[in-house]
Amino acid sequence: MEKPSLPSGTRDFSPRVMQRRKYITSVMERVFVSHGFGALETPSLENLRTLQGKYGNEGDQLLFKVLNSGDFLSKADPAILAAKDSKGLTPQISDRGLRYDLTVPLARFVVMNRNDIVFPFKRYQMQPVWRADRPQKGRYREFWQCDIDVVGANSVVSEAELVEMYLEVFAALDLGVKIRINHRGILDAFLGVLETVENWNAFMIIIDKADKIGFEGVSKELEEKGLSMALNAWKWLWDSKSVSGNAEKMLLAGGADFLQGDALNKGLGELEKIFGLLGDSTHVVLDFTLARGLSYYTGAVFEVEATDGRLPADFRLGSIGGGGRYDNLTGVFGLKDVSGVGVSFGLDRVYDTMEAAGLFDAMEQAVGGVLVCAMDTSCEVFGAGVARALRAHGFTVEMYPGTPKLKKQLDYANDKKMGFAVIIGNEELQANKVALKNLVSGEQVLGSVEEIAGVIAASI
Amino acid sequence: MEKPSLPSGTRDFSPRVMQRRKYITSVMERVFVSHGFGALETPSLENLRTLQGKYGNEGDQLLFKVLNSGDFLSKADPAILAAKDSKGLTPQISDRGLRYDLTVPLARFVVMNRNDIVFPFKRYQMQPVWRADRPQKGRYREFWQCDIDVVGANSVVSEAELVEMYLEVFAALDLGVKIRINHRGILDAFLGVLETVENWNAFMIIIDKADKIGFEGVSKELEEKGLSMALNAWKWLWDSKSVSGNAEKMLLAGGADFLQGDALNKGLGELEKIFGLLGDSTHVVLDFTLARGLSYYTGAVFEVEATDGRLPADFRLGSIGGGGRYDNLTGVFGLKDVSGVGVSFGLDRVYDTMEAAGLFDAMEQAVGGVLVCAMDTSCEVFGAGVARALRAHGFTVEMYPGTPKLKKQLDYANDKKMGFAVIIGNEELQANKVALKNLVSGEQVLGSVEEIAGVIAASI
Repeated sequence: MEKPSLPSGTRDFSPRVMQRRKYITSVMERVFVSHGFGALETPSLENLRTLQGKYGNEGDQLLFKVLNSGDFLSKADPAILAAKDSKGLTPQISDRGLRYDLTVPLARFVVMNRNDIVFPFKRYQMQPVWRADRPQKGRYREFWQCDIDVVGANSVVSEAELVEMYLEVFAALDLGVKIRINHRGILDAFLGVLETVENWNAFMIIIDKADKIGFEGVSKELEEKGLSMALNAWKWLWDSKSVSGNAEKMLLAGGADFLQGDALNKGLGELEKIFGLLGDSTHVVLDFTLARGLSYYTGAVFEVEATDGRLPADFRLGSIGGGGRYDNLTGVFGLKDVSGVGVSFGLDRVYDTMEAAGLFDAMEQAVGGVLVCAMDTSCEVFGAGVARALRAHGFTVEMYPGTPKLKKQLDYANDKKMGFAVIIGNEELQANKVALKNLVSGEQVLGSVEEIAGVIAASI
Repeated sequence: MEKPSLPSGTRDFSPRVMQRRKYITSVMERVFVSHGFGALETPSLENLRTLQGKYGNEGDQLLFKVLNSGDFLSKADPAILAAKDSKGLTPQISDRGLRYDLTVPLARFVVMNRNDIVFPFKRYQMQPVWRADRPQKGRYREFWQCDIDVVGANSVVSEAELVEMYLEVFAALDLGVKIRINHRGILDAFLGVLETVENWNAFMIIIDKADKIGFEGVSKELEEKGLSMALNAWKWLWDSKSVSGNAEKMLLAGGADFLQGDALNKGLGELEKIFGLLGDSTHVVLDFTLARGLSYYTGAVFEVEATDGRLPADFRLGSIGGGGRYDNLTGVFGLKDVSGVGVSFGLDRVYDTMEAAGLFDAMEQAVGGVLVCAMDTSCEVFGAGVARALRAHGFTVEMYPGTPKLKKQLDYANDKKMGFAVIIGNEELQANKVALKNLVSGEQVLGSVEEIAGVIAASI
């Protein structure tokens, strides 16, 4: 008999892991809902014509394609079959693929339901996506995205709200973070220095590596790529990272004579307004070097990194969230001028970061949970009644299915980190009492069901 | 530009629908967790060798198969390609498929993790499954299953617990239901009358249609299929439906001389024990005609139907849940003698039933929700602070992104069924006060943020 296995790049989530994941997502959802965002779920399967052409050539290759049902070869071109032309055959045998991200499905949903949607449309979406990527540490073929977007409004009130939601979520999760923020307008204002759009693109790709290769590394690469006209601009950018306050950074940009134009003014104006709308911007840092998703974002851009003091010194995982404003969500589906702003949470990375910071440990200590143990079958009906009565008090209560030796039942309770065992033998049955054992302290007391309910309530 | 569309048999779930679905699943999860069940999630993609051969020929054909990545034709057999043999080609170009149910993944998970799992393993799982079925009303290609199982124990304490969980869930959802229960042993005891296993199988298939074709219809079909030796047994079964009490039905079966053997005694014994363990069995009915999943279940079987008085008289949807005990969950993967018992909830059907009974209406009346409306941009920073202050009181608060005319902002609040608008113009700004409008009554008051927070709290 073949041993069963999982497809590479996929995972089972055990109850222990799910408890943690659900804790994270429930905190997120509570914040989302308190800001008036509603949940959207879209199908895992989308028509390939909806997906293809939206993620570039590389993305198209990473789409999981689903074989048409039935006699799928009946309409295939014999010449293509004879040539073993996989690429040519694909559109003849597959009409549907698996969701690659949550943005294209959002755009499709907005276009298909534009007459029913109340705009500004505030939605959150937490669902798996699939990519036929090479699996490696931390990169999966099935993974979760969690996106929140405000669609159909262009006020930076939304940018400020999304930043506050980031802060609220991570505060509720007790994870220390820093949010970096920049604006496409600031970066666009470097076009005068870079002279051509090609140079500007190359510049942005190089400075994006500053975290890894440092000031000198970027400088060297700029020279190698024939971008030495931007060396001064790069030095200015690098130095701006050390300027302490956000307002000071804005002043700096306003006074930099090589940065000019409407884009700069729009960028500075929106950033100032966003910071003005925030209640507490202690953990929000303006960073002119943040160059995120520039093929897509057109206004403010955000990135979140964990800075929690409890993380190991060598812990590095990159950003745990990010996003920005975009001007044209639905253009690919023929609906023009739909502006929006959105951010996403990297659920797997938030999980890994919280685990590394030890934030799950306290959560999982035995506190509640009651196992009702019947010593033999004659006690089971009484035990079932006790379990019902305790559950009515709001406790998590299980009754062991069966009546093995008490040790086996208690091992089960300890393995599941339950706090209490209620032990019922014939003596207790006759006396209409039960024995309560505190599985942490080992203490044992005898009492009526109502009495022991009080003992449990007092100790959790 | 092509209009985007959904693959047939799939659905988007809008925020309004998601709110209802999440209400249902959160009630279920609360009950599951209070009984010590933990969540399991398994990948959408499974290896086809895990799935194939588990659901019969028909099931194999309904599996969605995912095309291998890259040059998937490179190893295909040219003769099979030339013959356009779709069936022969499939295993050469597809290694993975989409999850077809939640039972095979559970079995795979148990086998792969048997050394780490704490048995009895109590898990719940709510995830979509996919079937390449012909879509029709109420039948989708992507739909949700919700399963709860106790694996690795064979005490009927678990059967009773699952029945109680059904009762708790539907009581919490305020939906009136009846749970029918039977035991494989009772049905097996008809083998003496039916003479052969083939006859027994045919008999079970026919009586399963009794709801639709009635007593006479079943009788007629039994004669046509050469099963007239079972006509008396069928009459006994039909009459047993009218016997009022569960205990009376058990007595009836014990006394029926054509029903005999160990299977009958085991069935009656377990049923008696299950009813004894239940706190209140008012809505639990013994029904000897219930013949559910007999190729799989080996002990007690359950089925839930909605009997809510608020349902329209012509509302018929079939069962909204069911399950039973099985003896050999993991045998297909080489692990013998793993017994379990499980039930499932038909999430889509529960939703449709609750909608038909009008149970969502009350839930969705405007009660909370506050929209902060800034009259012009100079009021936005003040407004953002008001929104933060009200949110700190626990209210759901949005600030309209932008400052269109008040009517447009209030329309948005009404469309989203919000309860209150907080209106901030320059006058309010100067006075450090805000205007609170109750969107249901139309009443308006002026006060400090703390004062209006009190007004909101008092009216929701």
